[in-house]
Amino acid sequence: MFRTIKNIFSLVTGKPHVSKKVRSQETMNLILNRRSCRSFTDEEIGADDFQAILEAGRFAPSAVNLQTWSFITFTRNQWHEVFDRPIPFNGMRAIIVCADGARLKNHFSDFRETPYLNISFALFNAGLAAMNMTIAAEALGLKSIMLSETGKTGLLDFSYLQEKLGLPDLVIPVTTLVVGKEKGGKAGVPPRQPWNAVVMEKQYHEVNSQFLDDWFQQMFIGFKLTHPLSNFQKQLAFYKKKMAEAEEEIKKQYRT
Amino acid sequence: MFRTIKNIFSLVTGKPHVSKKVRSQETMNLILNRRSCRSFTDEEIGADDFQAILEAGRFAPSAVNLQTWSFITFTRNQWHEVFDRPIPFNGMRAIIVCADGARLKNHFSDFRETPYLNISFALFNAGLAAMNMTIAAEALGLKSIMLSETGKTGLLDFSYLQEKLGLPDLVIPVTTLVVGKEKGGKAGVPPRQPWNAVVMEKQYHEVNSQFLDDWFQQMFIGFKLTHPLSNFQKQLAFYKKKMAEAEEEIKKQYRT
Repeated sequence: MFRTIKNIFSLVTGKPHVSKKVRSQETMNLILNRRSCRSFTDEEIGADDFQAILEAGRFAPSAVNLQTWSFITFTRNQWHEVFDRPIPFNGMRAIIVCADGARLKNHFSDFRETPYLNISFALFNAGLAAMNMTIAAEALGLKSIMLSETGKTGLLDFSYLQEKLGLPDLVIPVTTLVVGKEKGGKAGVPPRQPWNAVVMEKQYHEVNSQFLDDWFQQMFIGFKLTHPLSNFQKQLAFYKKKMAEAEEEIKKQYRT
Repeated sequence: MFRTIKNIFSLVTGKPHVSKKVRSQETMNLILNRRSCRSFTDEEIGADDFQAILEAGRFAPSAVNLQTWSFITFTRNQWHEVFDRPIPFNGMRAIIVCADGARLKNHFSDFRETPYLNISFALFNAGLAAMNMTIAAEALGLKSIMLSETGKTGLLDFSYLQEKLGLPDLVIPVTTLVVGKEKGGKAGVPPRQPWNAVVMEKQYHEVNSQFLDDWFQQMFIGFKLTHPLSNFQKQLAFYKKKMAEAEEEIKKQYRT
């Protein structure tokens, strides 16, 4: 019980450890206060701003500068045409970020011999681009959320997206970045694993498993607070089914 | 020949397409002008600043908030102790960013059934964290470079790093982020694939292969300009050997 109270406390107070000077720096402030947004207004996004977000992705760094990504863009109407429903959370625009191993494989024969390496780099690079786009959105006064796990919009819906978007082999839809203006209050802080579990000096070290128990309990409490009507066990069962399906699809890509 | 001249021109003029207003925004300016730095001074980095960079990584978003990453940190002395040579490019600090599938697999049995999915998310999440740290460094007036391909510092040196850092199975060393203050002039702009090759509306489309030929020629010319004494073919042969080795190591992780 004491640990539960302590974890509720951590959930509310788990702020980044940085100096006031650092926190007051504009970009640091954006990075450290960024939260996923789960409710968007109907206000339009300027074409300039949307283009700037995509350019932030295009100008992200990548391993060996290979830029193994594709960004598939949607307005609300376009999303409706393709998926026959609104953008999740009523977002104004959406970008499906794909790790794209197809382009280079088709073009440069040397890449054919190392599928595991190529896809690994492509997934990492997709993360670099997605983060740059997310920060760009914040910089322009917009909010966003990356969806990978629910609502037919990310890696857990691989086959569905492959069909709807006409994705060739080796193009992996990793996440949907939903963008818009925030409606209502600021969302809570999702719990972070403690510094000592993540940052290691000089050598890798195993993590104290109590850290992970505490953090998982915080996740669970957080879920209960933000989804009071939801059944956690049912949600977990749903995810596990989706995960098993996605697993088969991803495995296939490595053998293509 | 005309295309070669055109490609040299593109190499020099391939700037992001954003409005002046967007470009003048501080964070957008950092994102769009960020270049990898290949020469660092001997000036120390404040402990506060280094901590802030790591916090930017720790507070990055991740799929299902699972934070599947580890950051292994080094001062110059620590790097020397472990690797018996200086940090590449004379960097002042280094962070080896790992996609970490070990922690959750050991702790939560449900994760054991979907290794491809778990590693894919871990690689993507590592990209999100690495990008956040890179931008944080820029925000604090520092420069950085991510190394994945040379000098025993990234995914292409998997076994070597696994041994030196004591990495358990399912911890994949993706990249080394080298940080410091920049020495000398600003590096050139590495060529980006054209907008139409990367950004797609509503549906995936195959990319005109001339786009890729042009871009690859720009990469080649860029390499020649920045590495005038290097032998491109020899370099390529070296990479191919490293890639084949890394391929085996990565493949093994999915079967662990």
